Amino acid sequence: MDSGLKRIAVLGSTGSIGQQTLEVARDFPDRLKIVGLAAGGNLGLLAQQVREFGPSLVSFGGEGLDLRRVPMEEMASHPDVDVVVVATSGKAGLAPTLAAIRAKKGVALANKEVLVMAGEVVMAEARRQGVEIMPIDSEHSALWQCLRGEENREVARLLLTASGGAFRDWPLGKLESVTPEEALRHPTWRMGRKVTIDSATLMNKGMEVIEARWLFGVPFNQIQVVMHRESIVHSLVEFVDGSVKAQMGPPDMRLPIQLSLSYPERWGNPTLPRLNLKEVGALSFGEVDLERYPCLRLALEAGRRGGTYPAVLSAADDVAVALFLQGRIGFQDIARVVEETVAKHVTVDRPNLDNILAADSWARAAASEWSKQPG
Amino acid sequence: MDSGLKRIAVLGSTGSIGQQTLEVARDFPDRLKIVGLAAGGNLGLLAQQVREFGPSLVSFGGEGLDLRRVPMEEMASHPDVDVVVVATSGKAGLAPTLAAIRAKKGVALANKEVLVMAGEVVMAEARRQGVEIMPIDSEHSALWQCLRGEENREVARLLLTASGGAFRDWPLGKLESVTPEEALRHPTWRMGRKVTIDSATLMNKGMEVIEARWLFGVPFNQIQVVMHRESIVHSLVEFVDGSVKAQMGPPDMRLPIQLSLSYPERWGNPTLPRLNLKEVGALSFGEVDLERYPCLRLALEAGRRGGTYPAVLSAADDVAVALFLQGRIGFQDIARVVEETVAKHVTVDRPNLDNILAADSWARAAASEWSKQPG
Repeated sequence: MDSGLKRIAVLGSTGSIGQQTLEVARDFPDRLKIVGLAAGGNLGLLAQQVREFGPSLVSFGGEGLDLRRVPMEEMASHPDVDVVVVATSGKAGLAPTLAAIRAKKGVALANKEVLVMAGEVVMAEARRQGVEIMPIDSEHSALWQCLRGEENREVARLLLTASGGAFRDWPLGKLESVTPEEALRHPTWRMGRKVTIDSATLMNKGMEVIEARWLFGVPFNQIQVVMHRESIVHSLVEFVDGSVKAQMGPPDMRLPIQLSLSYPERWGNPTLPRLNLKEVGALSFGEVDLERYPCLRLALEAGRRGGTYPAVLSAADDVAVALFLQGRIGFQDIARVVEETVAKHVTVDRPNLDNILAADSWARAAASEWSKQPG
Repeated sequence: MDSGLKRIAVLGSTGSIGQQTLEVARDFPDRLKIVGLAAGGNLGLLAQQVREFGPSLVSFGGEGLDLRRVPMEEMASHPDVDVVVVATSGKAGLAPTLAAIRAKKGVALANKEVLVMAGEVVMAEARRQGVEIMPIDSEHSALWQCLRGEENREVARLLLTASGGAFRDWPLGKLESVTPEEALRHPTWRMGRKVTIDSATLMNKGMEVIEARWLFGVPFNQIQVVMHRESIVHSLVEFVDGSVKAQMGPPDMRLPIQLSLSYPERWGNPTLPRLNLKEVGALSFGEVDLERYPCLRLALEAGRRGGTYPAVLSAADDVAVALFLQGRIGFQDIARVVEETVAKHVTVDRPNLDNILAADSWARAAASEWSKQPG
């Protein structure tokens, strides 16, 4: 990375974060070079990205590609790569993240499930290799920025902000009848489908608490969620002396993406929106209603219990959201599927990767049974 | 400072910041030892403080003290002192601050005029001696905290927040008839009389912009003032990538005072209030109306012009506020005294300390003439 040109591999390049990563790369042709692109689907878009960026490494999870292909793990540890952007979804990011860490790459992490499922394993490996994980999620990027120059042991609380998702103002009784189309309309962020539904249930926020616990080594009971409708304050850190630091910005994922690529520098980028506080007018904060968001309650419980519970939560949610988007279960059933699956699970303490993947498979099977139940 | 016990000299111990510094020292008897106390007046309170803290160095500016006395500059550079808290007011802090810097002490600075009058001289000396100035003012402490771990050259803007003072909602026409009693009621902060009046005129905020310019080496045109009524967000930094960091806390000066004493650590202190964002509810931001606050406009102009203008502004304001508190001029006359004095001044570019003190004396004499004018 000494030449000043960082060589980037983007895993999940056709997803929302992957595409926005390439938008940032387009803004800095002299500083960022895309050397690897990996996608699990959407061959048309991948082909277009390959034509534009001319990466030497290409990986495609589906059929029908005529290029030389490398598996994601090989790409993540390839000598030509400086920074690996893990923008895959689900458990797909787990193995390449570990491969990148072992090869001492910079790891820019957007894939939530990596730390939700295997936070202890992944962070232990990162510590062993001396690799810093650079979070791309806006909340974790905010915490990371607030912690710059500070001591993690002087943290009193991490406060993750939650916009409340698409149904924050709906009467509770109406949530049963929410349609996938309604759930896919997020009030502030531009994101993928799965994440948008998880934002509506706040499952997303619960998973972020679990991620934060591992990323920053702060005990679970010192991490809280606060309602913040405007999505301007991306998260806050309270220190032991009572001082609070917050990171703010317009709700645009390109900002945390860019920071993960420019780190430890910050780069000026005129194509990114600027925050105008005087236009924003007011920032509001409030309590999160756990009755409205049972998925948040379930995620916090799973995180507190640890073991393989978070992996089961994540897998069950993945299945449940897919069933909901297919119209096979209702919006409120997402939490029910997750709750019943977690309730049936027998956890493994301090699990290794095999235990975690086994729990994931078990949970997917168990959760899939749900839609076959009568009524 | 290796023993873990920091030896503190408090200059201006009977003022508001001085008293609150001693409150913090009382909370940490095992970490902070008061070895010096200096006061310009209020012998009764000083005697009480001397009895409680038993400092070996005592300085009193007035008459009637029976203790062995040392001048403030000697105290500030005494070998028994690790950190000098400069909580004097007016130009009294200038010489001891320079003495402390030359003796390579930790300098916790609350005295605004030191940097307003002589920012370039003081910061050049601090750089030469490798001394970091630790700001006590809540706004500068906020900026200092937001800049921890960051590069000053990656700053796009410093945003100082202003509560708007006691008359932010008064009809403009009524300001002419404001009484000293009304002006001394600040909506959020507990402060000395001079500072409270300066907060009502926003002269205070203009001086803070000048201080920030010197403290953080950020060009004047990259420092802005934003209205924030709640006094919760103490200031913000926008970086070149558009990311914004803010520092928040309850409006209590003991927090920034404590940080200046605990630095580079942060200490838990159960006697300090905590911020409860959910109770705060909302934080508002808006434009500052320069028509309502002519003193802010004058301070920004003086800061932009540089030279001895800021020293003249500060001295003229000192005289004007005293005249107002004595009932000899009206509230709106404060800005008029300052404006006319500055207009008459012939500046010295890149002034040395003598130039600055001469400008101060000239401005005091010139401003004092004002109240003798007819009508």
